[in-house]
Amino acid sequence: MNSLGRIFKITTFGESHGEAIGVVIDGCPAGLKISPEEIQTELDKRRGGQSAMTTARKEKDQVEILSGIFEGRTLGTPIALIIKNQNTRSRDYESIKNLYRPGHADYVYDAKYGHRDWRGGGRASARETAARVAAGAVAKKLLLSAGVEIIGNVVQVGNEKGGQLNEKMKEIIARAKAEGDSVGGVVEVVATGVPVGWGEPVFGKLSSDLARALVSIPAVKGFEIGDGFECATKLGSENNDALVNQGGQIKTASNHAGGIVGGISNGENIVLRVALKPASSISKEQTTVDRDGQEQNISVQGRHDPCVCLRAVPVAEAMTALVLADHYLLSKISKI
Amino acid sequence: MNSLGRIFKITTFGESHGEAIGVVIDGCPAGLKISPEEIQTELDKRRGGQSAMTTARKEKDQVEILSGIFEGRTLGTPIALIIKNQNTRSRDYESIKNLYRPGHADYVYDAKYGHRDWRGGGRASARETAARVAAGAVAKKLLLSAGVEIIGNVVQVGNEKGGQLNEKMKEIIARAKAEGDSVGGVVEVVATGVPVGWGEPVFGKLSSDLARALVSIPAVKGFEIGDGFECATKLGSENNDALVNQGGQIKTASNHAGGIVGGISNGENIVLRVALKPASSISKEQTTVDRDGQEQNISVQGRHDPCVCLRAVPVAEAMTALVLADHYLLSKISKI
Amino acid sequence: MNSLGRIFKITTFGESHGEAIGVVIDGCPAGLKISPEEIQTELDKRRGGQSAMTTARKEKDQVEILSGIFEGRTLGTPIALIIKNQNTRSRDYESIKNLYRPGHADYVYDAKYGHRDWRGGGRASARETAARVAAGAVAKKLLLSAGVEIIGNVVQVGNEKGGQLNEKMKEIIARAKAEGDSVGGVVEVVATGVPVGWGEPVFGKLSSDLARALVSIPAVKGFEIGDGFECATKLGSENNDALVNQGGQIKTASNHAGGIVGGISNGENIVLRVALKPASSISKEQTTVDRDGQEQNISVQGRHDPCVCLRAVPVAEAMTALVLADHYLLSKISKI
Amino acid sequence: MNSLGRIFKITTFGESHGEAIGVVIDGCPAGLKISPEEIQTELDKRRGGQSAMTTARKEKDQVEILSGIFEGRTLGTPIALIIKNQNTRSRDYESIKNLYRPGHADYVYDAKYGHRDWRGGGRASARETAARVAAGAVAKKLLLSAGVEIIGNVVQVGNEKGGQLNEKMKEIIARAKAEGDSVGGVVEVVATGVPVGWGEPVFGKLSSDLARALVSIPAVKGFEIGDGFECATKLGSENNDALVNQGGQIKTASNHAGGIVGGISNGENIVLRVALKPASSISKEQTTVDRDGQEQNISVQGRHDPCVCLRAVPVAEAMTALVLADHYLLSKISKI
Repeated sequence: MNSLGRIFKITTFGESHGEAIGVVIDGCPAGLKISPEEIQTELDKRRGGQSAMTTARKEKDQVEILSGIFEGRTLGTPIALIIKNQNTRSRDYESIKNLYRPGHADYVYDAKYGHRDWRGGGRASARETAARVAAGAVAKKLLLSAGVEIIGNVVQVGNEKGGQLNEKMKEIIARAKAEGDSVGGVVEVVATGVPVGWGEPVFGKLSSDLARALVSIPAVKGFEIGDGFECATKLGSENNDALVNQGGQIKTASNHAGGIVGGISNGENIVLRVALKPASSISKEQTTVDRDGQEQNISVQGRHDPCVCLRAVPVAEAMTALVLADHYLLSKISKI
Repeated sequence: MNSLGRIFKITTFGESHGEAIGVVIDGCPAGLKISPEEIQTELDKRRGGQSAMTTARKEKDQVEILSGIFEGRTLGTPIALIIKNQNTRSRDYESIKNLYRPGHADYVYDAKYGHRDWRGGGRASARETAARVAAGAVAKKLLLSAGVEIIGNVVQVGNEKGGQLNEKMKEIIARAKAEGDSVGGVVEVVATGVPVGWGEPVFGKLSSDLARALVSIPAVKGFEIGDGFECATKLGSENNDALVNQGGQIKTASNHAGGIVGGISNGENIVLRVALKPASSISKEQTTVDRDGQEQNISVQGRHDPCVCLRAVPVAEAMTALVLADHYLLSKISKI
Repeated sequence: MNSLGRIFKITTFGESHGEAIGVVIDGCPAGLKISPEEIQTELDKRRGGQSAMTTARKEKDQVEILSGIFEGRTLGTPIALIIKNQNTRSRDYESIKNLYRPGHADYVYDAKYGHRDWRGGGRASARETAARVAAGAVAKKLLLSAGVEIIGNVVQVGNEKGGQLNEKMKEIIARAKAEGDSVGGVVEVVATGVPVGWGEPVFGKLSSDLARALVSIPAVKGFEIGDGFECATKLGSENNDALVNQGGQIKTASNHAGGIVGGISNGENIVLRVALKPASSISKEQTTVDRDGQEQNISVQGRHDPCVCLRAVPVAEAMTALVLADHYLLSKISKI
Repeated sequence: MNSLGRIFKITTFGESHGEAIGVVIDGCPAGLKISPEEIQTELDKRRGGQSAMTTARKEKDQVEILSGIFEGRTLGTPIALIIKNQNTRSRDYESIKNLYRPGHADYVYDAKYGHRDWRGGGRASARETAARVAAGAVAKKLLLSAGVEIIGNVVQVGNEKGGQLNEKMKEIIARAKAEGDSVGGVVEVVATGVPVGWGEPVFGKLSSDLARALVSIPAVKGFEIGDGFECATKLGSENNDALVNQGGQIKTASNHAGGIVGGISNGENIVLRVALKPASSISKEQTTVDRDGQEQNISVQGRHDPCVCLRAVPVAEAMTALVLADHYLLSKISKI
């Protein structure tokens, strides 16, 4: 279940402290110009160690292209991208290899599989998202050829909301960090240039596929499109977006719907938000159990993000791009 | 894109005013006892015409089993269920067949397909959800054999919140109806008895599959699991669920996570909520355009729900059941 | 596992003596003109009771369109087609409900599922192929819009080979019938008009998808494309098809490859053949066992085909059409 | 379309002269013991340069495990395996980069994608099969835990048939090689120990999935199960396998069916054969066209196999193993 997409399809692999993580993109059309640098640029946005507000784990996250691109253009064959794991300090984890960290997948993986890579969270590590970002770079390039751009922003940290990361939000993060704690937030993604008609009825709705893709990001606990939960409080007469004729084009007077109606894009900006819980790894002492069920205290050491929202921005953009790329291709064959 | 699920897989079909709607369930194990009455009971919960608060369209929604069940038990072959469309008043729609109803999929379907069944919303009608409920009845029965139960409730209407539908909520709905308007709300679904270990890493997370399934319900604009958007405002030390040993079993002291960690069930109750927008069909006059792009006023007549939340409850339960049934089967083959 | 196809995708359902059999086609583009008569015409080709050489079970096999077609054109939504089972004589099977018919799936279904519809073979009955033919009719219509036609023929019965069914073949069938026996044969399908470039590398090869689809037909035990098994005896210099320039078009001087190279169509006729075993249902006495493992003699009564090849022709055409329709759509998005 | 399987699912990638080829296995259960040596052993069987009868391209085909295996056992997460391309002599191909080799995919890839990696056949090279063999090694190990073994053999070269590769066959190959030519043949694969009940009705038949998988091997032009094309010449009374009671177990007295009835295994040996065309790369002069449509003579130099059957044996085994592993897992959830 490590695949996503119907036509533009990705399969990711890799454990946090294994040899490498990576992704295979199957279904990207031939002839798309893409350079290693374009992929690297996206990866660099996700990388830690860039400010006081992100983890100190400094990895180059150097992408290697193993296949699918020849003379600077895609071949129509699978594009395999890998990122070697280099700055892995497995020792950080050895002391807690038999302790289940609260909020982490340690316990559920052990229960499910009976065998677990305890080094750095293994497959459940957010490091896995680098592979998504690499694939997302290709999806973004494909979308760009269709005039679509995707921009993400942190729009809430703790109780502080705003159009993008501001000083107050930074303070909240700094305070959490100082206390060995972490804090949650909200990331918004806007896709511009999506024409009317992307998305498929019923179970392939654009909103539905976006929900799946975005909620699959580690720490995401909520998803909304357009006005989202705010809609619950509204009347139909307030919430419906009136259709208008703008210079010969059918548009909506407002965009409460976030660009998607009946699961299909309506030509307005696509606007979605995801709520991220505070990072589970905190150095503050917590109660937990070990593999034998003995209750223990735990303080998660290591290099962790006090607010995962910051690094989640390129990941949320990537997931949005992957879904849109898939629907872009599907939209080409919806009518005869 | 009218299919959902990997092993327990459904494909729905049907337009609102066509011959019939229906569903094919492929992948239900053989030997499950299920009667037509058990399916009908679920369908009856979804049916309109039952109170002043739902649409007056009174359909029997009589399910017919075409295949897959023999001598009261499933055969392991596809289960085809159909519901004939009977009480269809296509005339209600003829006057607006060239008008795009705001908030509805009329315009995007026309743009996408170039050819549209305008009678009652066609495929985009919420009537399509009856097929989901029928399939969900089979999923619920399968889950029951594994000790899992699923209960949904309306927990918010407009700004009024509560454990379930209360008098204040009913008043808000009645007021909207009286004004030819509609109102939004929130539905919560709780699944009890799910053991630890259901869900698959990365793109097959239980949370992620639930998000996709629930957001595919018409009018849903938001989804959250556990504390959802509330998590954004919390510190890690507040939000992490401490692991404890309860009589030899590993449990959590709280359930902020809503029963899912790292995409995998942890043995606690699974708790999710969806936000539904106010129904788009309102008799209040709105501005819109017709197929030629001419601006027009529209008042949507016909028999509509002033608050879709009420009838969304069995649908949300069904979608939850369908996802859980799929993961129940998958969980059986996760280790050697 | 009752689905086939990636974009043009079908899901069939139904037991031989249940309420109905049917198919849901998901992914057919909107706007395709198709009438009930066009589907019925294909079904009529498959029907029994038409000559001394096929089963006497005379069913109208009347198709009903439940969804997906409006005003004579496809909507882009799922097309559900059902055929009610009418002329079912379940009594014919009651005497052998505990006997496993040699060559039939009775025993393996019982072992696999523990619960079996013994009436007329249930899901394993060749009656299931009517649903494929109905779906194939839509695929054929879609292909016709792309200039592709598909023609099947019986080219071998017993040891008698020929371009199509001839008198000697008919004699062989008549003799088998007279002796309460059955005889095998070979069906060939030719698709004309397929342009260069359909088919996907590695696991989506046109040849590979055709093999899967054709071998899924009941009684098929062999599949070949182009010269097939004959290739095994050839030298490369004999078997390679030289590329030539025919009036500005690249063509091949011969067609040993059967129109597919590296899994992708090369613009020549696609030629495939399937070998069908003699029908398993024969009135001649055979040895078998019952559900308790007791050895018994069995003479399969009822209305059976002495040579299934004849009725397999439209089925083989349908399966070929379904695969080609899927690849036709996929081919539209292979390059940017 | 570079994926195969439903539960035990592989995705391969890589061009012949690119950085690497590889495979991601998704869905292998956790806890399976597997060592790098076990995978390498299978790869070594496929490698060229081992006798006068195979290509002189001597590659180590050294497998690297990037993920999914920890402390010698599978984690239940994706297993990524790569093989770097080392002994690539792209110069061999430069002279023919604008020439379409007869029998090869050069022309169809160019037509389909508009952009092609001409070095060594790119993605269409049989080198891609090394990734299948690596994945097949894991599948074989999983099957072994269920008591299933898979053995392949060359049973025909040119017109010479036999139980396995014999002196006469070697002579035929040597003669073809001496003449700058190639020769076709047949490979047989037998799977022992498969219990009754693997395979799924209609489109997931074991026979049908095997056909798809085996025909996807480069050069395969025919597939048969059990008596295959021979069945076409038989009467039902000759071809049906009588069911018998062997010491309390239901078995068949003969195995014309090749271990599969109605698409489901019946507990007998599974026996299949594939026909391979003579290798397309021959040094004998042939007629062809170049990218501009100009007719040219071509003599394909480089290091090629005079008979691909020899190296196809481990590939055919691998493909059989991959399909069986998938159905082994599926069979565990067929009844309640």
